Amino acid sequence: MLTIVGELINTSRKAVNEAVEARDESVIRELARKQADAGATYIDVNCGSRVHDELEIMEWLVNIVQDEVDTPICFDSPNHEALRRGLEVYKGTDSMINSISGEDGRYETIIPLVKEYNTKIVLLCMDSSGMPETADDRMKVVDALYAKLKADGIDDDRMFFDALVKPVSSITTAGLEVLNTNRRIKDKYPDTHQILGLSNISYGLPKRARLNRVFTVMTMTQGVDGYIIDPTNQKTMADIITATTLIGQDNYCKKYIKSNRKGFFDIDD
Amino acid sequence: MLTIVGELINTSRKAVNEAVEARDESVIRELARKQADAGATYIDVNCGSRVHDELEIMEWLVNIVQDEVDTPICFDSPNHEALRRGLEVYKGTDSMINSISGEDGRYETIIPLVKEYNTKIVLLCMDSSGMPETADDRMKVVDALYAKLKADGIDDDRMFFDALVKPVSSITTAGLEVLNTNRRIKDKYPDTHQILGLSNISYGLPKRARLNRVFTVMTMTQGVDGYIIDPTNQKTMADIITATTLIGQDNYCKKYIKSNRKGFFDIDD
Repeated sequence: MLTIVGELINTSRKAVNEAVEARDESVIRELARKQADAGATYIDVNCGSRVHDELEIMEWLVNIVQDEVDTPICFDSPNHEALRRGLEVYKGTDSMINSISGEDGRYETIIPLVKEYNTKIVLLCMDSSGMPETADDRMKVVDALYAKLKADGIDDDRMFFDALVKPVSSITTAGLEVLNTNRRIKDKYPDTHQILGLSNISYGLPKRARLNRVFTVMTMTQGVDGYIIDPTNQKTMADIITATTLIGQDNYCKKYIKSNRKGFFDIDD
Repeated sequence: MLTIVGELINTSRKAVNEAVEARDESVIRELARKQADAGATYIDVNCGSRVHDELEIMEWLVNIVQDEVDTPICFDSPNHEALRRGLEVYKGTDSMINSISGEDGRYETIIPLVKEYNTKIVLLCMDSSGMPETADDRMKVVDALYAKLKADGIDDDRMFFDALVKPVSSITTAGLEVLNTNRRIKDKYPDTHQILGLSNISYGLPKRARLNRVFTVMTMTQGVDGYIIDPTNQKTMADIITATTLIGQDNYCKKYIKSNRKGFFDIDD
């Protein structure tokens, strides 16, 4: 079962921020609905760019989204107070927090919410020494985070490790190190999940959608089972469905055949 | 370095067989030239459908191909006499034989040619008990073939294992078993190569090009470094270049950037 976190409700996007400024519910409702209809299994809510009123806007957004769709919410902020505000008004039982990392202070302020609200948790493979370059460095953070989470009683299937994608334009092996990290997490902690927001891979290069699309299906061979993406991008979703079929997670190719019958692959020549 | 075997010169294709019947060199020359220009590192020559004159046609095709292009030839036949005829008239030093398998008799008749002409060799992961279903079964054939080849003095880098792709429409895990086989060969015999003719994966399903394209880049994450394909298919080649960049085999993304400058990715929206 793939986890698709719809990333569109983010105040760093101009249209969303303008809707927030104008308290225009319809824009937010449409983004929630469209993403749910497109197959999002979580709707991400991120208003971290609203430095002065993040708590108020988090509450406003969460109330609109949960009124519009039944899809669970992914609460997205490094600020534990904003996360708490969102979780306090949330009526659902399934939820995700994005994210904890190995950085000083971040774990300690957010883990109480993970426990109190029984949330899933995105775990960034970085610590206070910065973003790691190699798979070895990432695994040190993974091992440390995993040990802490287990000590705090968090089950493996609530953990979603994010190997953190860096641009291949700045480091030739940036993609390879992520793929190797994915493989090692899958081998070492097979009951945990892995999630990626992978558009960074193509930063600084032309034809970014091509790189993002190809990298997405490549990571699926390494055990990645979650993506933070725009689920209304039909090309991306079509490739994810196709890759699901190819890694043996589509009994009798039923999903593939059904998607084709609905015309979902008519984007192909 | 990727191995791209251009598969178009095959008498089971109607246009090629008609050219052979008419002894029309121009068709063969054009196919050789086009594939070489498109990036083929070997030109496959297969006239196995010519049961009654395979040896004569092999000689005729090889002479035309080597006159037209400098690209090495992949001699493709289960018939050792046809392979020998091709190799006898071949003037190049680099060559490939497609293929040996674990089937009774096949190894013994073809290995003398591999040794005498110092060829590369495609190794099909099947034996007389038939085409294997699981990675475990494939690895038994791989282990047996590898041991035999080493005993015959064949270096690892002349071996090209073909995990043998079966349709995902008939076995849900057909793709997964191939990916797992690829990974295990890469881990166990890291200095050997792997090659795939993978269009079988999509047999019996709609939008076959979509499945073939996605599966190709997925196998590149598992150590596959050779493909028996139509190199004039720009979509396939564009995805292979992109995946090469993403697995860290394109220093400073030079190939990717150069391909884009030449307009190679203009097929994208």
